[in-house]
Amino acid sequence: MSPVSPDSPLLLTPGPLTTSRSVKEAMLRDWGSRDREFIALNAAVRQRLTALAGAEASHVTVPLQGSGTFVVEAMLGTLVPRDGKLLVLVNGAYGERMLEIAAYHGRAATALRTPEDVPNDPEALDRALAEDPAITHVAVVHCETTSGILNPLAEVAAVTARHGRRLLIDAMSAFGALPLDAREIRFEALAASANKCLEGVPGVAFAIVERQALLAAAGNCPSLALDLHDQYLAMEGNGQWRFTPPTHVLAAFHQALVEHEEEGGVEGRGRRYRENCRILVAGMRALGFESLLPDALQAPIIVTFRMPADPAFRFEDFYDRLRRKGFVIYPGKLTVAPSFRIGCIGRIGAAEMRRAVAAVADTLREMGVASGRPA
Amino acid sequence: MSPVSPDSPLLLTPGPLTTSRSVKEAMLRDWGSRDREFIALNAAVRQRLTALAGAEASHVTVPLQGSGTFVVEAMLGTLVPRDGKLLVLVNGAYGERMLEIAAYHGRAATALRTPEDVPNDPEALDRALAEDPAITHVAVVHCETTSGILNPLAEVAAVTARHGRRLLIDAMSAFGALPLDAREIRFEALAASANKCLEGVPGVAFAIVERQALLAAAGNCPSLALDLHDQYLAMEGNGQWRFTPPTHVLAAFHQALVEHEEEGGVEGRGRRYRENCRILVAGMRALGFESLLPDALQAPIIVTFRMPADPAFRFEDFYDRLRRKGFVIYPGKLTVAPSFRIGCIGRIGAAEMRRAVAAVADTLREMGVASGRPA
Repeated sequence: MSPVSPDSPLLLTPGPLTTSRSVKEAMLRDWGSRDREFIALNAAVRQRLTALAGAEASHVTVPLQGSGTFVVEAMLGTLVPRDGKLLVLVNGAYGERMLEIAAYHGRAATALRTPEDVPNDPEALDRALAEDPAITHVAVVHCETTSGILNPLAEVAAVTARHGRRLLIDAMSAFGALPLDAREIRFEALAASANKCLEGVPGVAFAIVERQALLAAAGNCPSLALDLHDQYLAMEGNGQWRFTPPTHVLAAFHQALVEHEEEGGVEGRGRRYRENCRILVAGMRALGFESLLPDALQAPIIVTFRMPADPAFRFEDFYDRLRRKGFVIYPGKLTVAPSFRIGCIGRIGAAEMRRAVAAVADTLREMGVASGRPA
Repeated sequence: MSPVSPDSPLLLTPGPLTTSRSVKEAMLRDWGSRDREFIALNAAVRQRLTALAGAEASHVTVPLQGSGTFVVEAMLGTLVPRDGKLLVLVNGAYGERMLEIAAYHGRAATALRTPEDVPNDPEALDRALAEDPAITHVAVVHCETTSGILNPLAEVAAVTARHGRRLLIDAMSAFGALPLDAREIRFEALAASANKCLEGVPGVAFAIVERQALLAAAGNCPSLALDLHDQYLAMEGNGQWRFTPPTHVLAAFHQALVEHEEEGGVEGRGRRYRENCRILVAGMRALGFESLLPDALQAPIIVTFRMPADPAFRFEDFYDRLRRKGFVIYPGKLTVAPSFRIGCIGRIGAAEMRRAVAAVADTLREMGVASGRPA
């Protein structure tokens, strides 16, 4: 699907990703950010995103400059009122980051933790919400990239709705590849980014927010740049961004959304990623590696492998050798065990995943590592 | 210098701008944001920017995702302490915006205003600082894009330093084309962006900050994403961005900085823009138009023209006709008088400015407007 060469390696990471040539070529022109053509392109991006979430009747899409964390912070800052209280379901770094943001904002917050290889616990959430009526919002990470685990979003949403609380979703690394439909899952807002499963380039993120909740959120946000209420009102007014948008990145994002549709939308994209993941996990297991998660908990986004026990295995060396063969992998982020990660997303398919596994096999041989088996 | 066609018009705006083909082509590959190659590219961008400000001995460059406003907010949020007080020199929308940011952050702030066509007043600043010892920081806009006026930065810096206060500069639309050297002008930080006189694409901005002041700024910023102290410490630690950087935009920025150096740096870039501005103003005056500012106050960045009095002149029609001829101009932002603006910056030279003036002349004829003379 993409040419593999050491000059431009395949990115087997959680993003930025390998993108299609046509997505990058969409950046070969300059756009006036207040010109009608760009306004139309921006409106098309927003409309496509709202539709992807099945949310045209209830929600609006507000794009934001920056990385995924920028829009997660914007979502929390804009929607959790100053007298609100946030409960964050934490089983990795991205849940912890939402707690850190709440601390920056001086918002009351509490965590409900499970270990990094254990999904969020909807029953514990049920009890926590029953016990603490001050909690106004629940925040959940759909796919926690720390481990690659899939969290039980539907169950979490159902419990949150039953208690009359509002749900905020960090959908960053899953949106566009895993189903998330506003007609089935009740949420006040989700935050995601162009450069994950939608296969755009990094530099723009977005929130999909219940329109009524957004309209009621005036004066909440502690930041001008990150105020989604203000961003939305300005964009509804004249179709323009308040502050200079990343025009080239937006043009690439528009092309990426066209290609997402051409692939069959969430279903087609998800199917390719599941096959990528299956080939990767099967191939790595055949080499002795162990994935952290059982298959039932593994999202087809990024896979965590335990570090091999063989003393000849040094991760830096392994990384560099794979890099020279044209594959960039990702270090681990687990606190519980030494590990590394390999992503399944981006403009790559079965052939690239097979080549990646073959490169891992070659690398083990070069390093004199008999097996990827962990201790 | 650039091909002119209605499909990809020249952007005679304050940014995003027309960029070189080679700057855009630098975006035709994907980078792993934690891979060594990108770390080296990012370090080179930071080093070049610090050097451009003559600030290697004293300051560090901290890049930030987003538009110029993001880094202006980050600069104010990170450097003005919670018990600090900001005085903003205001003669346009960008000064007002800094006041708005201070209000979002709950920081004490006061304004020293002059009309939009009058530069900041260093003597009034002198008196204000003498009268109010609570003021810790002075904020100034080097070139106020609202009118295109050049503010007296050196005098403002001297007064601020004499009173032992700290200077924060919004250098957005001037940095890279007008001299600003830390060895001559005392400042705590400046904020600027890739997509102005440095001729990169939008999506990344940066602050150049006194290292000691930045190290002392822990805990100030009300936003995680915009915390330049945290951004700096993380980047110094491992050379990486805390949160996904706009990799393609950074690669384009690196190429733009190489081309800036090839053109002769600030001096060469400034020379071309001054010539662009001279051709534009002379040509428009020959058509009867009046620029808002006398030449001595006009920065060679963007020129404000008063709206013609001829009843046959309708701005929307004028804009559309110029657009079809391949030139995107910019609406006015003055509160004091109807106006429009034409920019002199970006990858355009004397030939393009002459073509732009000829297109204006043709357009006036088509519209039946005898002269651009205002009321």
